[in-house]
Amino acid sequence: MDILGEVLIGGRGVRGSGAPLSAIAAADGVLLSPIFHGAGDEQVALACELAGAAFDSFRARPDSERADLLDAIGAQIMALGDTLVERAMQESGLPQARIVGERARAVGQLQLFARLLRDGWWRQVTIDSALPERTPPRPDIRMGQMPLGPVAVFGASNFPLAFSVAGGDTAAALAAGCPVLVKGHPAHPGTGELIGRAIQRALLECAMPAAVFALLPGAANGVGEALVRHPAVAAVGFTGSRQGGLALLRIAQARPLPIPVYAEMSAINPVFLLPHALAARGDALARDFVASLTMGVGQFCTNPGLLLGLRGDAFERFGAAAQAALAACPTGTMLSPAIGAAYVRGVGQLAAASGVAALGQGTASPVAGQGALFTTDAGNFLANAALGAEVFGPAALLVACDDMAQMRQVAEHLEGQLTATVQMDADDYDSARALLPVLERKVGRILANGFPTGVEVSTAMVHGGPFPATADGRSTSVGAAAIYRFVRPLAYQNLPQELLPAPLRDDAEIPAWRRRDGVLTQQ
Amino acid sequence: MDILGEVLIGGRGVRGSGAPLSAIAAADGVLLSPIFHGAGDEQVALACELAGAAFDSFRARPDSERADLLDAIGAQIMALGDTLVERAMQESGLPQARIVGERARAVGQLQLFARLLRDGWWRQVTIDSALPERTPPRPDIRMGQMPLGPVAVFGASNFPLAFSVAGGDTAAALAAGCPVLVKGHPAHPGTGELIGRAIQRALLECAMPAAVFALLPGAANGVGEALVRHPAVAAVGFTGSRQGGLALLRIAQARPLPIPVYAEMSAINPVFLLPHALAARGDALARDFVASLTMGVGQFCTNPGLLLGLRGDAFERFGAAAQAALAACPTGTMLSPAIGAAYVRGVGQLAAASGVAALGQGTASPVAGQGALFTTDAGNFLANAALGAEVFGPAALLVACDDMAQMRQVAEHLEGQLTATVQMDADDYDSARALLPVLERKVGRILANGFPTGVEVSTAMVHGGPFPATADGRSTSVGAAAIYRFVRPLAYQNLPQELLPAPLRDDAEIPAWRRRDGVLTQQ
Repeated sequence: MDILGEVLIGGRGVRGSGAPLSAIAAADGVLLSPIFHGAGDEQVALACELAGAAFDSFRARPDSERADLLDAIGAQIMALGDTLVERAMQESGLPQARIVGERARAVGQLQLFARLLRDGWWRQVTIDSALPERTPPRPDIRMGQMPLGPVAVFGASNFPLAFSVAGGDTAAALAAGCPVLVKGHPAHPGTGELIGRAIQRALLECAMPAAVFALLPGAANGVGEALVRHPAVAAVGFTGSRQGGLALLRIAQARPLPIPVYAEMSAINPVFLLPHALAARGDALARDFVASLTMGVGQFCTNPGLLLGLRGDAFERFGAAAQAALAACPTGTMLSPAIGAAYVRGVGQLAAASGVAALGQGTASPVAGQGALFTTDAGNFLANAALGAEVFGPAALLVACDDMAQMRQVAEHLEGQLTATVQMDADDYDSARALLPVLERKVGRILANGFPTGVEVSTAMVHGGPFPATADGRSTSVGAAAIYRFVRPLAYQNLPQELLPAPLRDDAEIPAWRRRDGVLTQQ
Repeated sequence: MDILGEVLIGGRGVRGSGAPLSAIAAADGVLLSPIFHGAGDEQVALACELAGAAFDSFRARPDSERADLLDAIGAQIMALGDTLVERAMQESGLPQARIVGERARAVGQLQLFARLLRDGWWRQVTIDSALPERTPPRPDIRMGQMPLGPVAVFGASNFPLAFSVAGGDTAAALAAGCPVLVKGHPAHPGTGELIGRAIQRALLECAMPAAVFALLPGAANGVGEALVRHPAVAAVGFTGSRQGGLALLRIAQARPLPIPVYAEMSAINPVFLLPHALAARGDALARDFVASLTMGVGQFCTNPGLLLGLRGDAFERFGAAAQAALAACPTGTMLSPAIGAAYVRGVGQLAAASGVAALGQGTASPVAGQGALFTTDAGNFLANAALGAEVFGPAALLVACDDMAQMRQVAEHLEGQLTATVQMDADDYDSARALLPVLERKVGRILANGFPTGVEVSTAMVHGGPFPATADGRSTSVGAAAIYRFVRPLAYQNLPQELLPAPLRDDAEIPAWRRRDGVLTQQ
């Protein structure tokens, strides 16, 4: 379980021929050993070519065997034990409980996709039976899911386990039958290497092609750009900044053969405090809001960065209560010095914006991550697009609206978002009815009476949303439906049973539900 | 049922403020009355704004009412009777049987989506039940389908009914809950207006918002480009040339808020003649091939334009038999003078290409549409990318391969295609097994022992395929699954039952199958 600072290709670790990079302890900026060597151009190309060559044999393996692989990866991750937990804590600055919890989330994701594969339903096998007597005769047509090909996965800074080397993108892509090429995040290269070696061991254990996985570290953007440009790469999974996601999108669209980019980029996740709920339970809402805002030092894609209420006493009391709760919150270590610096810049820009007042900040501290609340009115918010930009960290803006019509106007004005939350009591339902159609057009998930952090990994979850929350609003990057990012439908017409892919045959080994002639059946 | 040459917006016909355009009889180039007035910029903008404003109310209507609308459109189209058939024949040059058949196909598509809506399954409602006892408690999460918004639909030249004003794109978009803005094809503006008025009558009959549909004729590209640029437009459906589709794709990607483009663009639909099948039934294959090649004067997206066989007597006999069959085929009128001219150009380029020999042509005729067969060898085909370009019309290239390995190499070399066909007998199955993985990566539909024309409208059909066959290989433009081009998943977390969209409620009016906690149920 050593960390050697290597590039992982073809089942082996090799010294990277690219630029070196260093792991840095998030808490104090101390360099962590070893020195990592980034992947060189020819290593990126080799990994892509090997993955492309392994694609047909990997996707031909039965779903049950890919399910075993996902479970084996989970087991290998757990077998890393404290080595993994400690390294992830060092590199990310996240506390032990969070890392342990995130590890459970990552393993849980792998297991979710393993269950999906064993169940068989995910392929949504659809069959139109032959009608030889019809004029003209109808052929036998069967629709299955075809994996797209090797997927380039970009590790996220804020989830060193659950959205990185063996995170949701990797789990979904492997489940779909796609080889995975990971551009490791430079903020946690040691964590990445530990996980990458766990995947290599699992592939070996399951007798799967080693080329199905590669880990390509890199300090700068070159490795990622080379990955997205390579002809063998068929899709991209990314969680990170808008700037980074859009850059990859542009590269992918400019290819001779364009490929889909699933980039989960940015959101401010508006929370609408409807009047009756705010009057009845403003203090509790304020406490819960601050707990969500400061969880993980605000470094979640679903962090609630925008609160909307009607101007008046109740909203002012809410602001004061939130400020009081925030003042009692300890400052946390941010994921990296760069993220901390960007947060301080963003808070400074909010503080300096015209018409924006500081409500107050959390406990002062020499390290970044100090919570910050600001307030403005809806007219000002509508007039200044910069106020709708994400500040990654525990900062939020409270916006006072004149009336529900103006609150709806603010909602219409928002960019695409991952989530919107409505705090409401029964007497607010009419107001909610007027607001919900706008929110449905703007977001991927609508919550009532909760807060958006804590994204459930389940079958119905949508962690996505219209551009620019994501690059492709037709997808989710969390939950079982994330697998559909990496497949396309493929129809077979009149193929002999023995030449059909196993899941489409009449005697498919997994007796999954199918849609036959418009009717669901297990026959 | 008059044709007035008008733009259809907001339930009315108005004189277009754009450039005039004329309908031309395909058979003889004679101008057909009346003069049409294309949509002006402000009319395009108005139609888009009205559609955007009507979107929320349209999508809120129950699925059953949108099903009634689709059926009503079908009935109104049938009520046009001979007026429609005759106009479509004049404008397209297609014979009566084809137009009557295509009308049945168009009405059948509307009915297919109506059935899909009444069945309810299409929404794939997925529910994760609340687990209040869990730590942390799991919320109730429900995933449904959210329509994207107004869809710009581009009528196709080659299907004046089934892929045009009320064609598959329109049917799928309306079914999904999206308003439709049609850029009518300039080759059949009168047919388009008749159909457009039928849709307007159906909307009125069903008390649906009139703004849900507009027909915007235009001779040049300006109307279509303005549509794709308009902020209210949320997706694009297109069937036509690669040049046209790629132009729309570039516009859509360059928008401040990019939108998906479903452009079905070009294909040569390779047919692989495996040795035993070719030896056993080459003559019958040649006859069936020529019937497919010349059907509709070869003007189908799925026209078989590339035939691959192993060099030798059997393949030569096949070529001779195909040529004999073609020589007996009457020349047909092509859809428009422009398409006829492009076809003659394409055939001329094939005839002049190095290493390509003419096998012969169909019956000579002063009008375009004369079938043409050419032959070359695989080495030459691999060396000249131009030989893989679509020639829209009844032309095909026979490629002689040295062995199965070279046939597979040609398959690897192909661009993305709508279809691939394998002619095989049982003794060919081993060869087919080696070829199929390549074809799976290249196409949207694989056929055995048939020909690719005659695309079934059914639940399992995929009429799509990897770029550049389509702009988005994750979709189909024919069959029930075409509806998924125009929706995205949306999750609701802990919403009160009365605020959920009706199909997601526990007491949904349509008792569709749902996936609840990972299990299919009708509860």
